[in-house]
Amino acid sequence: MAELLKGAPVAAAMSERIRERVSLLLDRGITPTLATVRVGENDGDIYYERSAGKRCASLGIEMCSMAFPEDVSEDVLLETIDQLNQDESIHGVLIFRPLPKHISDDNVRAALSPDKDVDGITDGSMAGVFTGSGRGFCPCTAQACTEILDHYGIDCTGKRVVVMGRSLVIGKPVSQLLLSKNATVTVCHTRTRDLGEETRRADIIVAAVGHAHSLGPEHVAPGQVIIDVGINTGEDGNMCGDVDTALVEPIVSAITPVPGGVGSVTTAVLALHVVEAAERAALKL
Amino acid sequence: MAELLKGAPVAAAMSERIRERVSLLLDRGITPTLATVRVGENDGDIYYERSAGKRCASLGIEMCSMAFPEDVSEDVLLETIDQLNQDESIHGVLIFRPLPKHISDDNVRAALSPDKDVDGITDGSMAGVFTGSGRGFCPCTAQACTEILDHYGIDCTGKRVVVMGRSLVIGKPVSQLLLSKNATVTVCHTRTRDLGEETRRADIIVAAVGHAHSLGPEHVAPGQVIIDVGINTGEDGNMCGDVDTALVEPIVSAITPVPGGVGSVTTAVLALHVVEAAERAALKL
Repeated sequence: MAELLKGAPVAAAMSERIRERVSLLLDRGITPTLATVRVGENDGDIYYERSAGKRCASLGIEMCSMAFPEDVSEDVLLETIDQLNQDESIHGVLIFRPLPKHISDDNVRAALSPDKDVDGITDGSMAGVFTGSGRGFCPCTAQACTEILDHYGIDCTGKRVVVMGRSLVIGKPVSQLLLSKNATVTVCHTRTRDLGEETRRADIIVAAVGHAHSLGPEHVAPGQVIIDVGINTGEDGNMCGDVDTALVEPIVSAITPVPGGVGSVTTAVLALHVVEAAERAALKL
Repeated sequence: MAELLKGAPVAAAMSERIRERVSLLLDRGITPTLATVRVGENDGDIYYERSAGKRCASLGIEMCSMAFPEDVSEDVLLETIDQLNQDESIHGVLIFRPLPKHISDDNVRAALSPDKDVDGITDGSMAGVFTGSGRGFCPCTAQACTEILDHYGIDCTGKRVVVMGRSLVIGKPVSQLLLSKNATVTVCHTRTRDLGEETRRADIIVAAVGHAHSLGPEHVAPGQVIIDVGINTGEDGNMCGDVDTALVEPIVSAITPVPGGVGSVTTAVLALHVVEAAERAALKL
């Protein structure tokens, strides 16, 4: 039986530390505040907005949710972002994407200040993740993976880590985070010749493919730690990850469940970023 | 005997293509122009400045070299960069680094426009390399590695590539370039547990460590392609790469020599970037 690396204890421990930092900010008269910007009524966005709201409320972080109709113009959206950039009472801005097709994702990303980019979508944040300069913020889900490894005392130094997936939201940033933690990192993707040959020799596998059953028993080996980033809908209609958990779990040493794994740490990372943004802004005053 | 992947034929083929593009620019009244900014009298900088000058002259690219004394103030340097950003007759700017300690590298990098950043030192260029957005430019030496692979018809798709080194100048950007060429990329470094176990199973090895004799016969296997990025001074006082070439060359299938390999392609990439910068600027007019 593999150890289940549940997200809830990670989020709880992070929340303890976040509360202390919020309290120091409140003492200085600063209420860390997140603004969310949503276009349309996507179920996933609304669900995440609600989760983020609950998390923030439990930590003393204010959240101000802005919702626009599906046909909002790009100009209105860019103007809103500009106002949020300038508003000193707002420390972090989360913009739900993908946006409708009539709105340029590039323009929206370019409009947001990296200082408030708590979900790591701007070029400034990307460069910060790539260079390790600490500018901007890492995409929350990518950082949730390393928060889990840290919490469960899994040291990455010298370990072989295989990251499945090369997306900008997870695969690429998590690779950089793991590299900065001194792992030997291999990035695999759809063009990788023999996935199993790569994954079977890993110490840690991060599955961030976006398809159910992407990592099966033929891909794993005893002793491994599996971080499952996927959020998919299985054939039975239930939520499932990228890993064939029922068959993989008996073989490996530890695995994050879906649901209840990486996903449940993401809003804690978001809250942490809002607090960090507020702290950085306070240091500039 | 391994095939020697010499840089000169790569640079010559690139120069042919660059000349055609320069000629189209000249027809439109645009002379692609590079400005170099050097502080102090470092031998390596002066050598590279001279090589770049020769390459540019042979291609119809203007080069304007600015040299400052070692004790130049940061303000003067930043003002110079600002003027170069605004000067429409300058398309690319190469700043020699490292700079003296009294000058902030971060401030200098932040001052340069990514549009003119032909050696990929700005955050804008870093983000461009990381995201594949095409913004800014890739560091020239990193791109020289993939130009060599392309020239010699070495397809990266599905290949196992091991990059030794995780520097911002070479290791990290070349990893991203190779990933975008659909290689399965592993980044190794000083904390990698068993370097040989990683490198021996690679199809292609990029050695970018910065120390002589970092890749020896115990690290390689028949059939491999070795790209040696190192420029070091050997015990005999002669220039050598990161690879123990005398012992490695009889084993592998192909290898870049040092000198005469990656280094001799770098100024061709620089010239290409100046032309691209001039073309992009012309498109904006």
